[in-house]
Amino acid sequence: MADKLAAIRYEIALANRILANEGVVDAFGHCTARHPTNPKRYLMSVSRAPELVEPSDIVEFDLDSRPVKKDKRPFYSERVIHGEIYKARPDVMSVCHHHAPSFMPLVITGIDYVPVFHLGAVGGAYPPFWDQRKEFGDTNLLVVKPEEGASLAKRLGNHKMVLMNRHGVTAVGANVRETVFRCIYSAKNAEYQIAAAGAGAVDALSAGEVEQCAAIHTKTTGQARAWEYWSVRLKKAGGMPKGRALSR
Amino acid sequence: MADKLAAIRYEIALANRILANEGVVDAFGHCTARHPTNPKRYLMSVSRAPELVEPSDIVEFDLDSRPVKKDKRPFYSERVIHGEIYKARPDVMSVCHHHAPSFMPLVITGIDYVPVFHLGAVGGAYPPFWDQRKEFGDTNLLVVKPEEGASLAKRLGNHKMVLMNRHGVTAVGANVRETVFRCIYSAKNAEYQIAAAGAGAVDALSAGEVEQCAAIHTKTTGQARAWEYWSVRLKKAGGMPKGRALSR
Amino acid sequence: MADKLAAIRYEIALANRILANEGVVDAFGHCTARHPTNPKRYLMSVSRAPELVEPSDIVEFDLDSRPVKKDKRPFYSERVIHGEIYKARPDVMSVCHHHAPSFMPLVITGIDYVPVFHLGAVGGAYPPFWDQRKEFGDTNLLVVKPEEGASLAKRLGNHKMVLMNRHGVTAVGANVRETVFRCIYSAKNAEYQIAAAGAGAVDALSAGEVEQCAAIHTKTTGQARAWEYWSVRLKKAGGMPKGRALSR
Amino acid sequence: MADKLAAIRYEIALANRILANEGVVDAFGHCTARHPTNPKRYLMSVSRAPELVEPSDIVEFDLDSRPVKKDKRPFYSERVIHGEIYKARPDVMSVCHHHAPSFMPLVITGIDYVPVFHLGAVGGAYPPFWDQRKEFGDTNLLVVKPEEGASLAKRLGNHKMVLMNRHGVTAVGANVRETVFRCIYSAKNAEYQIAAAGAGAVDALSAGEVEQCAAIHTKTTGQARAWEYWSVRLKKAGGMPKGRALSR
Repeated sequence: MADKLAAIRYEIALANRILANEGVVDAFGHCTARHPTNPKRYLMSVSRAPELVEPSDIVEFDLDSRPVKKDKRPFYSERVIHGEIYKARPDVMSVCHHHAPSFMPLVITGIDYVPVFHLGAVGGAYPPFWDQRKEFGDTNLLVVKPEEGASLAKRLGNHKMVLMNRHGVTAVGANVRETVFRCIYSAKNAEYQIAAAGAGAVDALSAGEVEQCAAIHTKTTGQARAWEYWSVRLKKAGGMPKGRALSR
Repeated sequence: MADKLAAIRYEIALANRILANEGVVDAFGHCTARHPTNPKRYLMSVSRAPELVEPSDIVEFDLDSRPVKKDKRPFYSERVIHGEIYKARPDVMSVCHHHAPSFMPLVITGIDYVPVFHLGAVGGAYPPFWDQRKEFGDTNLLVVKPEEGASLAKRLGNHKMVLMNRHGVTAVGANVRETVFRCIYSAKNAEYQIAAAGAGAVDALSAGEVEQCAAIHTKTTGQARAWEYWSVRLKKAGGMPKGRALSR
Repeated sequence: MADKLAAIRYEIALANRILANEGVVDAFGHCTARHPTNPKRYLMSVSRAPELVEPSDIVEFDLDSRPVKKDKRPFYSERVIHGEIYKARPDVMSVCHHHAPSFMPLVITGIDYVPVFHLGAVGGAYPPFWDQRKEFGDTNLLVVKPEEGASLAKRLGNHKMVLMNRHGVTAVGANVRETVFRCIYSAKNAEYQIAAAGAGAVDALSAGEVEQCAAIHTKTTGQARAWEYWSVRLKKAGGMPKGRALSR
Repeated sequence: MADKLAAIRYEIALANRILANEGVVDAFGHCTARHPTNPKRYLMSVSRAPELVEPSDIVEFDLDSRPVKKDKRPFYSERVIHGEIYKARPDVMSVCHHHAPSFMPLVITGIDYVPVFHLGAVGGAYPPFWDQRKEFGDTNLLVVKPEEGASLAKRLGNHKMVLMNRHGVTAVGANVRETVFRCIYSAKNAEYQIAAAGAGAVDALSAGEVEQCAAIHTKTTGQARAWEYWSVRLKKAGGMPKGRALSR
């Protein structure tokens, strides 16, 4: 158990750093995981830029996003994005909230995300939009109240991502690596989709292609290859977390 | 006092280097602070590229932009941008003038800056434009005469930024870190705004959202997180100033 | 013979790493070579991100894409792209399959590739498109069946590249360096072509210019200069393969 | 004299490396200087990627682009660009030929370069276009014949730059640093011009502003600041030439 917990804390730190190194997150954004043995808990860093997260920064929260142990360090204010999704979606083992630059043209205009190349299928076709203003009026756009988190989770439904108007994206996965893979390749897809739309008529994947491409790219072979690649890139950039990966 | 002064000189050097490392400034641009104990003075580097500024490069100027002590080193020619704003705006404790690439499509076309995501609210909605040509005819576009600086400061009014046609941007803040945060995230907003406008109809923040988002993002939590992140990135890039940060 | 084989294995590893370092490939994509003495064989890495390929990862396959020796390591699933092209095109000594970002607007919209500057001529004018869906219906878009590879090879015909709708590009060459040169400069051409098309009417090279430009840029002088440059950049990035280049 | 020559050879190597590090040139392109004491000679590297040029690579050519001393190393094929301009323009002391990515949309579409911000004025307003095809029909687009170089020099006239359709740019200056400054800031201007044109109506500098901006930015203060900045960036990137700068 202790080993499993140490392994997932390292994995979460590594995931946050990879997402930063690959340009998905900057000073803001967060990637979390459900507790490996207690499904009523999730694991999230204290308030730090993702690129700087260490395993020792990872704290345990209950699904109402309250810390399980007292901790004097500041927490992220948007914890309920994670807590409410873990509550609503038992299948979800990892959540990432981000503002990847290539997604911003979509969330600012409300243009639908559509897979335009095989790897973009991991984001799914036509993920829903959630506009905080519609239900909650003018806010500071941070998702901080439980009812805001619950509303977002409801809008996510059974999708893999939900796009948040004038804000960003929240994506989920069956494990940390799948979530990271989804965030990185959906961000590339968003980039290519907007670039292609500016050049001509977009030829999107068919529903059948989306299904088959998503299936193959959530298998472990491609994900293992990509994870090794992103880890080596992070290492070259001098960005590895302290400690070391434990067997999973 | 000496410690306070040393601390702010280090902070200014660090700010200039962070702005360079994050792509807001290149060989040109400058970020300054009002003197910590004498509001009739401001602190600015001698003429050097922002990425190279050291604490020892920081010189004291009066609000007419004359050096307080004799100094043989060359000064920036656009000092009056800073002096005249500190004169007109007692609340302003830091000023940054820059030509961030993502702002150039706005200042070249006169398209208004509008916040399109929560963090972009720190730039405010519809900051004014100042066209040097309108009042001063053909010039070399550098703001070097006191009356040019005063005209710019007047146009800035109570805003957080003023856009300068065919030239760049000047932004202000309640302290150095707020100014840096404003410059970096307004530049991202400008990038996303133009990218979104090219893709479809821009869905800007409402007036209420701008107010609330700007309020939350000028608080210290997010700024502290971002400052740590930018500092670590700068350190990884081998770009820290000489000396060390002192307690503030 | 052993030396020749060792040299080409190093060359393939280096080529994959250069293509990654120059942004043509990321976690996916692969560059291969025909066996230097046995034209019925080709050499390809086991399944790894191109940036991480070592000479020891290079495995020998027959033209039906079966490994010549037993090997427990996982292989790329799209081997038939290479095997079927080597089968159909005796003149081809190297093949690269990639999803370069700058090509994506073309393969997503079906806009033809046209050389718009002298170096872009190495990609040829109007390379064909291959749409897997037309012949094989909905698939996961990976080219894994022999008949899919054969169909792609047929569509390539005598061209230097074939564009794959909603997927990527496959390019060929008379040797590894020519293939790398073709991939890097055709990717730049695609970038410039789309950027230019967004700005005004594209003035493409004439058929005569394409022919003459392609001829001069597949000669060794320019290729040697570029190869040295890309190798030094890779070395600076800490990305050289293990072992060392052998005389060719 | 020997010292002067050594200094200029170092300066040319440094200039080529800075231009590469700042993204103006890649494997191709070249920056040269007129001989410091013999105006009938110019100094150019042997055929190497600009990022790799060492002082020892710099060779002396007469204005007909023939090497003054026998040398077995390969030369650039486009030497006549430089030789013919030095012949036609006694005021020119340095020439740079490049294919900067941001210029490509202009040279591919024939859209005129116009200064859109103060620093872009160093490129001048409406520099001429030269289309090799008009006078010489289909070629490989390389400027290799004396009459091609002479035609280009004639088209340059008294301008600071000439844009070459479907090829690139050639810029000149009163010294190496001015030429480098012109290339880097005109490339930024081209980038901003195209980005702005995509967003709205471009508000170009007036003729008077161009004149005054160009005058101030070819003075030494700004150029010295920029040169120090680019040199430090190059040093951080591990790219300095061998040997050291000599007093000029």
